[in-house]
Amino acid sequence: MSTINTELQNKLKKTAAVKAADYVKDDMIVGLGSGSTVTMLVDELGRQVQEEGLKFTGVSTSISTAKQAKSLGIKIVDLDSIDTIDLTIDGADQVDSDFNGIKGGGGNLLWEKIVAANSKKLVWIVDKSKVVDRIGAFPLAVDVEPFGSHHVLKKFSDAGFNPVVRTDKDGKVFKTDSNNIILDLHLHEINNPDKLADTLINTVGVVEHGLFLNAVNEVVVGKEGAPQILINSKVHPSYQ
Amino acid sequence: MSTINTELQNKLKKTAAVKAADYVKDDMIVGLGSGSTVTMLVDELGRQVQEEGLKFTGVSTSISTAKQAKSLGIKIVDLDSIDTIDLTIDGADQVDSDFNGIKGGGGNLLWEKIVAANSKKLVWIVDKSKVVDRIGAFPLAVDVEPFGSHHVLKKFSDAGFNPVVRTDKDGKVFKTDSNNIILDLHLHEINNPDKLADTLINTVGVVEHGLFLNAVNEVVVGKEGAPQILINSKVHPSYQ
Repeated sequence: MSTINTELQNKLKKTAAVKAADYVKDDMIVGLGSGSTVTMLVDELGRQVQEEGLKFTGVSTSISTAKQAKSLGIKIVDLDSIDTIDLTIDGADQVDSDFNGIKGGGGNLLWEKIVAANSKKLVWIVDKSKVVDRIGAFPLAVDVEPFGSHHVLKKFSDAGFNPVVRTDKDGKVFKTDSNNIILDLHLHEINNPDKLADTLINTVGVVEHGLFLNAVNEVVVGKEGAPQILINSKVHPSYQ
Repeated sequence: MSTINTELQNKLKKTAAVKAADYVKDDMIVGLGSGSTVTMLVDELGRQVQEEGLKFTGVSTSISTAKQAKSLGIKIVDLDSIDTIDLTIDGADQVDSDFNGIKGGGGNLLWEKIVAANSKKLVWIVDKSKVVDRIGAFPLAVDVEPFGSHHVLKKFSDAGFNPVVRTDKDGKVFKTDSNNIILDLHLHEINNPDKLADTLINTVGVVEHGLFLNAVNEVVVGKEGAPQILINSKVHPSYQ
């Protein structure tokens, strides 16, 4: 994972976010992801709604994004009230050249994956530091049912996954919007993401994991100069 | 599925439950399942605790079983407070000759599977009507994350799984002890349980399903005369 300073990173995130806002057209139903880059996207979309009369309907992957969007005049509806999402724009923690990604740094991976699974098109916005040869240096979030979660932690520990129970800024156990917990796996490098995904999803107590394998259609990468757009011509998510 | 009258069925359930109580020895940590047959087991174990001085520690798969057990003087501890469960006794909705079973009629399949996955030995107690050539006539419960669950329902419907949202006796959407919903799949016959389990667990939004494939060590079957005990010498659960 290349390291860049926070100021530059925020600038690059913003160029990706502003570029991705162009994907949103009038009358679309748009999935809005979560995280710091999406916050910038939602700011830009809010500006376009207010200043340029953009009209679209949003579906949110987190309570916090829904709140931000509504505060900016973006119409947000419940996922269950619509048939399909035209386009979802979300962030990612890491993505490799096979379009395998890690998400969940913000803890919203379950709702993010549900929204992605119901979208015709998925676009990620990242700064250049997130594009890597091999995913895994970023901790992999796993969404876990609280009941008996100590045993899932132990299984992951025995498997060498180096799990850590995520805590919030007050040191309390972090709870997701669905009241689950997050175990962050410190794997350093993931050599076989498909096999790992299979192991994780078949572990009793695991609700969902942050591996999004070959699921994204386009990645907008913020870098110096114009953002780069990576196009995945063979998208075929490993989940249904 | 053979049909028997309720009075006989309750009698046979009770013979299985009383027989299975013999498996519980002093100082064991015992997983106590859920459902009507387990209620009979817990009654019997409570009697043995009170009248015969049986001493064991229980771990419960549902809030209701925990409540019943405590009311009878059985010590109940949290699953996360112990390392392993010596024995779990639970009911089942159907079981075939390959020891593939369906659970979830009571809606507690998630916690039941978590407790089973952390038990050295799993025993089911059923009446003879639950032993079938092929599972599937009993609706298969699937535990689903509420967010976006309408779309899971639609996917299952498109796949021909005939899903029905479970409701409670007041007609409201049934909520599990983890605040999830249950979709009951009316499949009639399950020809390839392993393939179905794989499809279900990889559907985004599914938390867990009621297929317990080759996971049970012994099945105590209540029938006229003495209960029959079916022993699975090749137990190897499809989940971890």
